[in-house]
Amino acid sequence: MNVLVYGFGLMGKKVAQAVRENEHMNLVGVVSPLFDAKIDEKMYTSLNEVDESVDAIIDFSHPDNLSDILKFGVKNHCALVLATTGYSQQQILHIEEASSQIPIFQSYNTSFGVSMLTKIVKEVAKEFYENGYDIEIIEKHHNQKIDAPSGTAKLLYDVIHEDIEETEEVYDRSTVHHKREKNEVGIQSVRAGTIFGEHSVIFAGHDEIIEVKHTALSKEVFVQGAISACLKIADKENGLFSLKNLY
Amino acid sequence: MNVLVYGFGLMGKKVAQAVRENEHMNLVGVVSPLFDAKIDEKMYTSLNEVDESVDAIIDFSHPDNLSDILKFGVKNHCALVLATTGYSQQQILHIEEASSQIPIFQSYNTSFGVSMLTKIVKEVAKEFYENGYDIEIIEKHHNQKIDAPSGTAKLLYDVIHEDIEETEEVYDRSTVHHKREKNEVGIQSVRAGTIFGEHSVIFAGHDEIIEVKHTALSKEVFVQGAISACLKIADKENGLFSLKNLY
Amino acid sequence: MNVLVYGFGLMGKKVAQAVRENEHMNLVGVVSPLFDAKIDEKMYTSLNEVDESVDAIIDFSHPDNLSDILKFGVKNHCALVLATTGYSQQQILHIEEASSQIPIFQSYNTSFGVSMLTKIVKEVAKEFYENGYDIEIIEKHHNQKIDAPSGTAKLLYDVIHEDIEETEEVYDRSTVHHKREKNEVGIQSVRAGTIFGEHSVIFAGHDEIIEVKHTALSKEVFVQGAISACLKIADKENGLFSLKNLY
Amino acid sequence: MNVLVYGFGLMGKKVAQAVRENEHMNLVGVVSPLFDAKIDEKMYTSLNEVDESVDAIIDFSHPDNLSDILKFGVKNHCALVLATTGYSQQQILHIEEASSQIPIFQSYNTSFGVSMLTKIVKEVAKEFYENGYDIEIIEKHHNQKIDAPSGTAKLLYDVIHEDIEETEEVYDRSTVHHKREKNEVGIQSVRAGTIFGEHSVIFAGHDEIIEVKHTALSKEVFVQGAISACLKIADKENGLFSLKNLY
Repeated sequence: MNVLVYGFGLMGKKVAQAVRENEHMNLVGVVSPLFDAKIDEKMYTSLNEVDESVDAIIDFSHPDNLSDILKFGVKNHCALVLATTGYSQQQILHIEEASSQIPIFQSYNTSFGVSMLTKIVKEVAKEFYENGYDIEIIEKHHNQKIDAPSGTAKLLYDVIHEDIEETEEVYDRSTVHHKREKNEVGIQSVRAGTIFGEHSVIFAGHDEIIEVKHTALSKEVFVQGAISACLKIADKENGLFSLKNLY
Repeated sequence: MNVLVYGFGLMGKKVAQAVRENEHMNLVGVVSPLFDAKIDEKMYTSLNEVDESVDAIIDFSHPDNLSDILKFGVKNHCALVLATTGYSQQQILHIEEASSQIPIFQSYNTSFGVSMLTKIVKEVAKEFYENGYDIEIIEKHHNQKIDAPSGTAKLLYDVIHEDIEETEEVYDRSTVHHKREKNEVGIQSVRAGTIFGEHSVIFAGHDEIIEVKHTALSKEVFVQGAISACLKIADKENGLFSLKNLY
Repeated sequence: MNVLVYGFGLMGKKVAQAVRENEHMNLVGVVSPLFDAKIDEKMYTSLNEVDESVDAIIDFSHPDNLSDILKFGVKNHCALVLATTGYSQQQILHIEEASSQIPIFQSYNTSFGVSMLTKIVKEVAKEFYENGYDIEIIEKHHNQKIDAPSGTAKLLYDVIHEDIEETEEVYDRSTVHHKREKNEVGIQSVRAGTIFGEHSVIFAGHDEIIEVKHTALSKEVFVQGAISACLKIADKENGLFSLKNLY
Repeated sequence: MNVLVYGFGLMGKKVAQAVRENEHMNLVGVVSPLFDAKIDEKMYTSLNEVDESVDAIIDFSHPDNLSDILKFGVKNHCALVLATTGYSQQQILHIEEASSQIPIFQSYNTSFGVSMLTKIVKEVAKEFYENGYDIEIIEKHHNQKIDAPSGTAKLLYDVIHEDIEETEEVYDRSTVHHKREKNEVGIQSVRAGTIFGEHSVIFAGHDEIIEVKHTALSKEVFVQGAISACLKIADKENGLFSLKNLY
């Protein structure tokens, strides 16, 4: 499988290295306007220069490159892994359009483990809920993170809410003084030290508790996840995939 | 749904009470050779005396009663929840035979949560393994438990092993001096205090960890689980069901 | 050690039984205005009737009995374990006064484990904080609990705050959009199922995390804790003790 | 505080950088037979060349350098942090001798968090044990680790055993068929993925559990730990210190 990496920043470099080391992949080259180091493969400053066969592009660059990438992808029918953040609503629409002609995986979080966590939650949340179980989410991140709850915690809640429409998010229990309503899904955020990222979904019923917890230890999970997603997406039919339906 | 409870020991009493309180169930009566307390429903000393319509029997009594229960079940086509322990190989065969004519759920552990844990493990173990994840199991129980690992830990391993044939159980890492082989599944047993029962399955890959943990807090989980199983089994086609395939 | 139990409700009965079974204790009798069952020991309706030697009283009754209990305690110089809830400010003052003449342990939560958790936190919180660690608290309780955070979570925070004056409690991170300040102590409350009570204190620094977690599985922890407290307090000098300084 | 770093391998470089960034420290220079990169401070190939005032040496080099380091330390009365592994029995004796004249911290694991875990265990293990609690240890490491249990798990057991002489280590519960003896301390080892290092000590009594868990996320904990140890040891009287008694 011929893979092109778009972007040569911190993540682009790591991804290129991971493609290089993967036995099922061949690194065609890297596309970037700027290279601060040499690589053994081809160095392109634009997709226009690419003349080799490409099966998939992994993009960790910038939203500005989206239009070029989609054009190239559709023209050459190659699968896309879009792990860049910050797309506009307009751009999301363009991605959707393009996905009618090629398979596209788009997610700012490419972690394989979070995909699996999402899959598990999707699989069991409704059955737990209908059997009288309460659902709660806890996430933990480092003390430099500005937003709360995390995007992944919101994604997990969305997955639950899609299947159990009556649920409602609850963030703060200290300001109310009443028993928990059955349809509440508490989402608690812990911020401390350099914790890279932990997400836990708790299902608690009568005297039993099931907890599904994902712990990420480094950026490496996004690199490996992009590789897994790329291998997976290449086998898919045309369409738009996310953490919710890739695996 | 008309339910008959077989057994009036500690568990039989709790189950009868739970049937009584369940809005979808009607307690026909209890079968037991001995009653140390009165109940509002019918008290039978043998299944031969039962003349009312019965949709399901929940059995928490003794292996000696199996033959009567199977006969009654097949004759009246009622679903069976067999939560008694200690069946002989011969008896297991009889259960299998009977299950061609009625739906039977047989499991010494009726916990709904353990069923769900089993279901999750079945759903994801192979995919994790194929993506390079290692699998380990930890179980914790009270200091009075004689055997290790627990029957449920073995069941979890079986579920994994069914889908990933090359796995091997490892109990003690202190006596060997080599790196972990990929196909090893470590099973660790903790015994302390009055811990009622905890089972955890760990999937660990490159810088990420998924843990699925079940905690039981009291015998109540077996009571509630028997009720859930009874409601579920009554809708099933004829056949033999266990924690692995009930939900 | 001659122990008198005050109160014959749910907790009083359990405590009386635990005193009976303890090899270092002799149950003198129980004081209660009402007995709904017979006991083998003396049944008093008031402390005025007690004519035997008493080394300690364990009280799980009602604030109204406080004045009698303090009077009896001071007069007979016996140690007091006051596990009743709902004292007025005035009554707290009376307890403090009496404690100049006898040793008194007063706490609505008598759990030995929570005492030990408190002791550990007191021992290490400041040192962690001064070494750049962040501190966070998570507590989990059943879905019937009305208040949040739990009284014990507040106690844990108080213990931290006493030694690190600049700390501030934070309950909800979803409404702010900034990095965590060093002196924040997040307190998160989870409500689900029948979880009896779990308290966790997290110390997270640069790439390492220490978590100290207490899990209570039943009311039994308060019974056993009252027994432990009683044995401990009897050896203390006069004074007022709580979970913070008993062990 | 003038600090000299001995060793310029992976750890030596990280420690030198950490000393450089610490506001209470001044990096005098680095000692190494070989430098594969330039540094802004002095580069010595031997301690004999050092002519500046040194308050402490942090050593992440090789046992062969011990004798030079001890001589230098004693002569210039500077504190030593010896984080090198593989000393012979003879060398350990030399370290002990030297420690009568200067303060020395010697530990292959310099993690501050593990020190604190050790301190907590030392503080509470006996009291838990005497109150009827069982003690168990679980450690988790990556799948490349050859030995089990980890050196730190053994250290934790030693700390427990020093205070409770009757304890006995138990590694494998699957080969025996009896109830847990009170004096057993189970030590369980999990090996999976790239888990950097996790140690948990569990105290379980009647319906309550206290767990103290340390998680290390990267080598950085040894770097930061060496810095903390250096700051701490410089204030100590002459003597030999380890994780058990430094903090």
